Amino acid sequence: MVAQQGTPGSRLGRRNDPDRRDRIIDACLDVIARSGVAGASHRKVAAHAGVPLGAMTYYFDGMDDLLRESFTRFATTVSDRFERRMAAAQDHDAAQAAVTAIILEDVFGDDRDLVLSHELYTLAAREPAYRSITSAWMQRSRAALERHFDPETARLLDALIEGLTIHRALDAEARDPREVERAVARIIAA
Amino acid sequence: MVAQQGTPGSRLGRRNDPDRRDRIIDACLDVIARSGVAGASHRKVAAHAGVPLGAMTYYFDGMDDLLRESFTRFATTVSDRFERRMAAAQDHDAAQAAVTAIILEDVFGDDRDLVLSHELYTLAAREPAYRSITSAWMQRSRAALERHFDPETARLLDALIEGLTIHRALDAEARDPREVERAVARIIAA
Repeated sequence: MVAQQGTPGSRLGRRNDPDRRDRIIDACLDVIARSGVAGASHRKVAAHAGVPLGAMTYYFDGMDDLLRESFTRFATTVSDRFERRMAAAQDHDAAQAAVTAIILEDVFGDDRDLVLSHELYTLAAREPAYRSITSAWMQRSRAALERHFDPETARLLDALIEGLTIHRALDAEARDPREVERAVARIIAA
Repeated sequence: MVAQQGTPGSRLGRRNDPDRRDRIIDACLDVIARSGVAGASHRKVAAHAGVPLGAMTYYFDGMDDLLRESFTRFATTVSDRFERRMAAAQDHDAAQAAVTAIILEDVFGDDRDLVLSHELYTLAAREPAYRSITSAWMQRSRAALERHFDPETARLLDALIEGLTIHRALDAEARDPREVERAVARIIAA
């Protein structure tokens, strides 16, 4: 695409605002966290990012493209945190403690992460094309776990992390954090 | 509330169509499966149920009330199936096989169930008031599992069922069904 002077992506516009594309992606995640995928429109995201509406079609090939870029960034961010935790573990015990910490502290670092994860899962449940994002995310988590555990244990731990974090987040009752530690120990010991 | 002649809930209307309220709830689930919670309006649900728009406000105290009734019905339906599986198991081995069957066959009986579950989780992630529905659902699953397993194993199995079904559904790669059997065995044996 050749940028023309005066368009949102013109040489001048880009030189003055090189992070514009990045900012649109971040803004899109903010809008999804607040209003859901269904409430995310080009207009709303542009307003939140503080860019002209025309910038949306300059940088993204429609809403699907923007959603795909946004959720890929979200999954990569969560995945990076996961990867760092597992890479920092020096031995088997530390790896076991890292998995527990991921469940108790990391996965849904806050309500925004919780909402964004479920928005992505809902989208992938409805439209199989988005499963390339959830698949890649799972693959990265499993690779991080495989630094310390065999592939089947890694897949099982990854499923346990998913199930326990969702159940802890969506249960109105508080749960004993030591149960998580014992759950991880049971799977690893088996 | 006193029904008045001529209103959608009049004595005559209800006598001729006693299942109207039920039908609206089913229609709401259909609309959510297709268009999401965000796309479910009184107008759309009424059209799908084949009832006049006025029936919506007669039977339900706003959209929140209808969503709550609809997701409660959905959770109860899935939960009943779970409960029947566990109740039918006569011994420990049969209970173990039942848990495997729930993961492989039941939880997301079809794509509609998958989408509806994630729509509910997203709603509960965003609005804690809806966690009474997810909490009650988890409580019923755990009670069904506790027919055969101790409470901690039951909670752990329930989390495993959640995690494995989501990962199997949202992974673009096919997964070995025997892995599910081994996963359940590992947790129970621990």
